[in-house]
Amino acid sequence: MEAKVLKVDLTKNKIEEEIIPEKDYRRYLGGSALASFYLLKELEPGTAPLSPDNILVFASNVLSGVSVPGITRYTVASKSPLTGGFGEAEAGGWWGPELKKAGYVAIVIYGKADELQYLWIQDNKVELKSARHLKGKTTGELEKIIRKEFNDKNIKIAQTGPAGEKMVRYACVLNNAKHANGRSGMGAVMGSKNLRAIAVRGTGEIFVDNEEKIKEIRKWYHSNWKDINYNFFEYGTPGAVENLNESGILPTRNFQLGTFEFASDISGSEMNKSLLKEREGCYACPIRCKRVVESSGKYRVDPYYGGPEYETIGSLGSNCGVGDLEAISKGNELCNKYGLDTISTGVAISFAMECYERGILSRQDTDGLELNFGNGEAMVEMIRKIALREGIGDILAEGVFRAAEEFGSEAKDYAMHIKGQEIPMHDPRGKTGVGLGYGISPTGADHIETPHDPSFSDEGWVMDIAATLGIYETLDPLDLSSQKVRLFSYLQKVYNLYNTIGVCNFSAWPQGLLSPDKLVELTRAVTGWNISLWELIKAGEKANTMARCFNIREGFEKEDDMLPARLFEPLKDGPLKGQDIDRDRFIEAIKEYYKMEGWDENGVPLREKLEELELEWVDI
Amino acid sequence: MEAKVLKVDLTKNKIEEEIIPEKDYRRYLGGSALASFYLLKELEPGTAPLSPDNILVFASNVLSGVSVPGITRYTVASKSPLTGGFGEAEAGGWWGPELKKAGYVAIVIYGKADELQYLWIQDNKVELKSARHLKGKTTGELEKIIRKEFNDKNIKIAQTGPAGEKMVRYACVLNNAKHANGRSGMGAVMGSKNLRAIAVRGTGEIFVDNEEKIKEIRKWYHSNWKDINYNFFEYGTPGAVENLNESGILPTRNFQLGTFEFASDISGSEMNKSLLKEREGCYACPIRCKRVVESSGKYRVDPYYGGPEYETIGSLGSNCGVGDLEAISKGNELCNKYGLDTISTGVAISFAMECYERGILSRQDTDGLELNFGNGEAMVEMIRKIALREGIGDILAEGVFRAAEEFGSEAKDYAMHIKGQEIPMHDPRGKTGVGLGYGISPTGADHIETPHDPSFSDEGWVMDIAATLGIYETLDPLDLSSQKVRLFSYLQKVYNLYNTIGVCNFSAWPQGLLSPDKLVELTRAVTGWNISLWELIKAGEKANTMARCFNIREGFEKEDDMLPARLFEPLKDGPLKGQDIDRDRFIEAIKEYYKMEGWDENGVPLREKLEELELEWVDI
Repeated sequence: MEAKVLKVDLTKNKIEEEIIPEKDYRRYLGGSALASFYLLKELEPGTAPLSPDNILVFASNVLSGVSVPGITRYTVASKSPLTGGFGEAEAGGWWGPELKKAGYVAIVIYGKADELQYLWIQDNKVELKSARHLKGKTTGELEKIIRKEFNDKNIKIAQTGPAGEKMVRYACVLNNAKHANGRSGMGAVMGSKNLRAIAVRGTGEIFVDNEEKIKEIRKWYHSNWKDINYNFFEYGTPGAVENLNESGILPTRNFQLGTFEFASDISGSEMNKSLLKEREGCYACPIRCKRVVESSGKYRVDPYYGGPEYETIGSLGSNCGVGDLEAISKGNELCNKYGLDTISTGVAISFAMECYERGILSRQDTDGLELNFGNGEAMVEMIRKIALREGIGDILAEGVFRAAEEFGSEAKDYAMHIKGQEIPMHDPRGKTGVGLGYGISPTGADHIETPHDPSFSDEGWVMDIAATLGIYETLDPLDLSSQKVRLFSYLQKVYNLYNTIGVCNFSAWPQGLLSPDKLVELTRAVTGWNISLWELIKAGEKANTMARCFNIREGFEKEDDMLPARLFEPLKDGPLKGQDIDRDRFIEAIKEYYKMEGWDENGVPLREKLEELELEWVDI
Repeated sequence: MEAKVLKVDLTKNKIEEEIIPEKDYRRYLGGSALASFYLLKELEPGTAPLSPDNILVFASNVLSGVSVPGITRYTVASKSPLTGGFGEAEAGGWWGPELKKAGYVAIVIYGKADELQYLWIQDNKVELKSARHLKGKTTGELEKIIRKEFNDKNIKIAQTGPAGEKMVRYACVLNNAKHANGRSGMGAVMGSKNLRAIAVRGTGEIFVDNEEKIKEIRKWYHSNWKDINYNFFEYGTPGAVENLNESGILPTRNFQLGTFEFASDISGSEMNKSLLKEREGCYACPIRCKRVVESSGKYRVDPYYGGPEYETIGSLGSNCGVGDLEAISKGNELCNKYGLDTISTGVAISFAMECYERGILSRQDTDGLELNFGNGEAMVEMIRKIALREGIGDILAEGVFRAAEEFGSEAKDYAMHIKGQEIPMHDPRGKTGVGLGYGISPTGADHIETPHDPSFSDEGWVMDIAATLGIYETLDPLDLSSQKVRLFSYLQKVYNLYNTIGVCNFSAWPQGLLSPDKLVELTRAVTGWNISLWELIKAGEKANTMARCFNIREGFEKEDDMLPARLFEPLKDGPLKGQDIDRDRFIEAIKEYYKMEGWDENGVPLREKLEELELEWVDI
């Protein structure tokens, strides 16, 4: 069971196929690990992220395309223009499976096209085509045009948008204009290469070793998801808004607070009552957790772009002080239309709002906008300005880390980023493991690189997974003992596995729809390999270690594994008022983590650890 | 699912029960890990091994007693009088399951009885009884007497023999007078405590969570073992003699050679033709790999004591240059009768033979015996002298390390031991992973602490297990690369797991009778815990780490993880003639292993590794 990879050189207009031998396919599996493999092998350290020399990898995986729910995610990875380090982002949807059906597990993009282009893959027919006519088009427009060109509405398109063309540093990649490879600025890299989209039509069969077993797993999933995960169909990720608010860790007004007075107005249940038009899902998945919202009111929200996830409601909503779900939905529409990561976008705006309220920015600086917390119209307008790099939007398009340099030294205190990437919508003061994850994540603050911690609001699923790994005593969300470090270390491997074999966290989490056991069964049934949980978890560890090595090559140091000062201050409100993270203990915990991983005291993986993971070829 | 432990203080004549809470039972599981738990918690570092202050642990495990083949082994552990470090030895047979049926998972023995005693356990009735009438009796005699006393031939007896009473440093513990906890001198510790035997009659039910699943596994095993492992029934471990001879690594004449000219005369097939009377097995096992031999010829071999295993044939046979299977069988009978470890006994005799041939020992020193290699009669007589500490036997009873001190400095070159324990019958020059194992094993040279390496003669089963763990490229037996270190490190965890949950290597090895998958199924079915392969392998790692910590507390250093000089010299004969182990590379490989394990450069586990394994309470 070997795999094919497309290698596309935009500078030379050259397309080649590379075969991954079965042994390497089993070693790297896809997604995060496979993408890291190419980045470590082929990218020269020190390369400027937005230069033609950067490499951009689209990596599906060994499972994707098989008709089982929860395994559709694929990775886009590159050197990140936000962090200057390892960048990756995962997305579900339909594109990953389509690529597999076309016969490829991954695409590696090199160089830069002279003019805007897109890549067209029709099974084994692959060509670069001019995208001159697509320049500046919204993501939705682009999809319609390409599908019309080929008269095939089943074409799946991964693209960056106008924001990517403008190299907004947190431009994202989207498929079906709503499933985002959100973080790390992968859309900016795509834009820097003059590659607007990759359109795929795949009609091939997906190889499966044991069709009977696959049928059995699929049937089991379809029979059981309603009992296990109905809430997720009912409310989607927005269901988390009220839970996090009640726990006191819903980021509010640029992380100044942990509760939001309008939380119920922007909640999942409110969405169901007001804007929800329908529910959509990913390839092969019955849960349909994705929201589709519509409004013909003040903001005219276009359902083509889906609806806001929890992270988007947090970043454009509570974190900007905006309690208007319609404004948030419009903001979501614009982010998807222009190709912006909603998290970084929201945090960039909330940062500007805080600067405005503190007098660091004047109304002149904001091009006349009253950029107060809670101003939904200003929030929506700012998204447009960022995407098109207009006025202050041009500065915020650089991300809060660089914008703060522009705004002056006081502003730096309000720039909520780690390693240059804006912080997602989980305040770590109420779940310390998330704090470790934010600090350690190779991509900077990133909830997809960060396993969930046992939290006050979860339903025990974190500890369900942990118990399979031998951690069966529930740890307090506020605990930052060495046992929390251990829990984090184990779960992180599992999360990195998900990012490698494309498992949807929402399928894997709740009471075991895709439990560790099921993942072993599934991987065996698909591949025929006698793969075990041990090997799978080690693959997750491998992915994380490769990303770490990438950053070390780029000069990252242990000091980069740090939270912004604000998160060490006590929470100011809500049930966790007064709760902080002890900075000394945090630093010590990070060091403990290094040692647990087989890294040295500076966070550099030992040669022996690399050998254990068969990464002896990695040069750090 | 909690467990009960008997705590028996011989000094105070006090017997207590201790409950292990379910969480700790799951953490330590039994065997090696559970015994280490007690030794680390309760034994003062620096205690003299043969003093009343030493502690002796008999530890069955969470699986034992369930009517499934291959899970009967139990551990005897203590501070070893051979090495002064961690001592443990496993035995199959019938005693472990019987203890479980009596309601106990383990027994911890403290102090020293005034006079020889034995412990009598009849379900929950436990008492210390005088063994005055058993003093000096052979193991067989003792069994008959006790069974007659209670008129119950189903009583299972673990005992040391006359050699244990005399504190021969490598006296063993035996059950049914033929299943030996052979290594580490556990019988000497038992003798030092004036405890001759532990007789058990258990009639209780063994708790099982999922009886249906257990039935299914049992049925599967019974239906499949013949296809998978018939050779083992047919030839038992003696089947290995010819394989190892053909590979050139059958220890011969005190490890001077790797082939033996009379190998076929002492082989498994020869045994079948000549001395084999019947085949016997362990509790619940259909394979019956144990040999029972009989002879009314020159040596009159009593079938009560079973027959020689491969290790015994190597140590008393080829390694003493003895090509007479009847003499070897007699030697085996005597070792079992007196309670001597056959490996250490054979190596002690071969050591004396080499000293004799080299003129270090005179005929006067040997009490008139012509102690040449190949003298079967002298070998047999030496066993008796060692067991009863007669003449030169009294010196050899101390083990080769101490005997060499007696015999003078030249003799030290011929003392084939590691950490004070004699080397088993696998020459590591033809399988380097075994060399690593010998060096690293916490008990000194020990084939039960040492995973098999891919060898020239195996049938791929080592790589079968390795492949489950993600190592699926077969490594050469002579390879000592970092990938061999990794293979060793992974397999060692598996072996330590076997020593912890009582898995018989011969059931686990060949093509998966008790494959890693089956072990997970089985452990889940027995316990009802959602335990995974990850947790099981981590339990193996935990056991090994605890033993390492024990040794560190006792002052062991990295220099102790070393092979004797002879094993670094080129092999002198056979297909591997000229093959050596490169000493520098070996030392480097050991260091690589330390780092892979999360130990420091001196082989001391990092605090963070202890935390990961929930061993933060261990004080090193």
